[in-house]
Amino acid sequence: MEDKVKIIEIKKSVFAANEKTADDLREELKQKGVFLLNVMSSPGSGKTTTLVELINALKDKIKIAVMEADIDSDVDALTVAKKTGVQSIQLHTGGMCHLDAEMTSQGLNGLSNLDDLDLVILENVGNLVCPAEFDTGAVTSLTILSVPEGDDKPLKYPLMYQVCSLVVINKIDVLPYFTFDVAKCKENIKMRNPNAEVIEISALKKEGIDKLADWVLKQVKNWKENK
Amino acid sequence: MEDKVKIIEIKKSVFAANEKTADDLREELKQKGVFLLNVMSSPGSGKTTTLVELINALKDKIKIAVMEADIDSDVDALTVAKKTGVQSIQLHTGGMCHLDAEMTSQGLNGLSNLDDLDLVILENVGNLVCPAEFDTGAVTSLTILSVPEGDDKPLKYPLMYQVCSLVVINKIDVLPYFTFDVAKCKENIKMRNPNAEVIEISALKKEGIDKLADWVLKQVKNWKENK
Repeated sequence: MEDKVKIIEIKKSVFAANEKTADDLREELKQKGVFLLNVMSSPGSGKTTTLVELINALKDKIKIAVMEADIDSDVDALTVAKKTGVQSIQLHTGGMCHLDAEMTSQGLNGLSNLDDLDLVILENVGNLVCPAEFDTGAVTSLTILSVPEGDDKPLKYPLMYQVCSLVVINKIDVLPYFTFDVAKCKENIKMRNPNAEVIEISALKKEGIDKLADWVLKQVKNWKENK
Repeated sequence: MEDKVKIIEIKKSVFAANEKTADDLREELKQKGVFLLNVMSSPGSGKTTTLVELINALKDKIKIAVMEADIDSDVDALTVAKKTGVQSIQLHTGGMCHLDAEMTSQGLNGLSNLDDLDLVILENVGNLVCPAEFDTGAVTSLTILSVPEGDDKPLKYPLMYQVCSLVVINKIDVLPYFTFDVAKCKENIKMRNPNAEVIEISALKKEGIDKLADWVLKQVKNWKENK
């Protein structure tokens, strides 16, 4: 069958002079003591449900706000505000496939109480390609991979798994109905990123949220101590 | 809660001077009698599995080849070649989030028997945003939406559902385990695109493939008769 397969390389340099803005934003947030966490995933992998549970687990310990990027709709920011009570900003990207540091900065400027916050969570556009290429100015990023998407995603979307420090495997409640091998998935993640941590959750069934909340809290505390 | 939500518009004009190349390619393929079908979806919604079943249902009736776009890996083209026996090309996008008409044209030039083919199926990059913005030169496009992604995807990724003529709802075998409302999903699709047809399948369980094959065959026949 090998003779039936031909491989053609298509290369294009991607425009990305976004780093300076991201570094400036990171420095500005450091001065204010605000930790920015960037959350990325495919469409439909459960970002918003996960964030609602995470925020509810953390909101009595630290002051949090959330920014929801979406191409058009406002449903995610409304959902988060309703279900957690924290300040929530909807960023309309107007068709854009990712957020960059300038867009993130515009969002942060829209928060009424930025100086008082400990943590701002940025829900990036649902997309495993473009968001990985643009530094948002966040301290760190996490990527959600849901069981129905398949354990091979780290092989197919390399950069997404290289730029994050945590991979959250979501929807573990449906493991019996899919051919998803958790051990294999972890191997694939390690291959892309030996330093990435992995936490398994079901946001819908509220399983594993405590571990995720502990991870976030640890990141924020370590960063505050070292800044 | 409404006072907790603020909406910020971020607009950017997207560079897309790709139309001329796409129209030229479409004309060239028309002369050759080759129907190009563009297949788009989220990562992990079952594009490759669906294409294997579709090709096996059609390959005795029409001459088919397939082009698999992937950022880095070669597994999809190998899988399709092994499981269907048709000629299969892997397009490495080198990190690019979509295919444009020029990349598609490079892929087509790599097929050894283009003039003899009736149908070339292009599996685009797994991404609900960028591929919708770039005309590949295809006669038409179909979008796969899998049950675990949620019935709200047409609300969140408007353009993807506007540019396709068929939405394939895949993984209907797992409907009992997700809060996915098929009727609501169809409403959401119609809202974005009143002319879109909808076909429900489970590629894994080989359900509904005959309907999908009939749809593709009808498109190719109508186009050949009208060209």
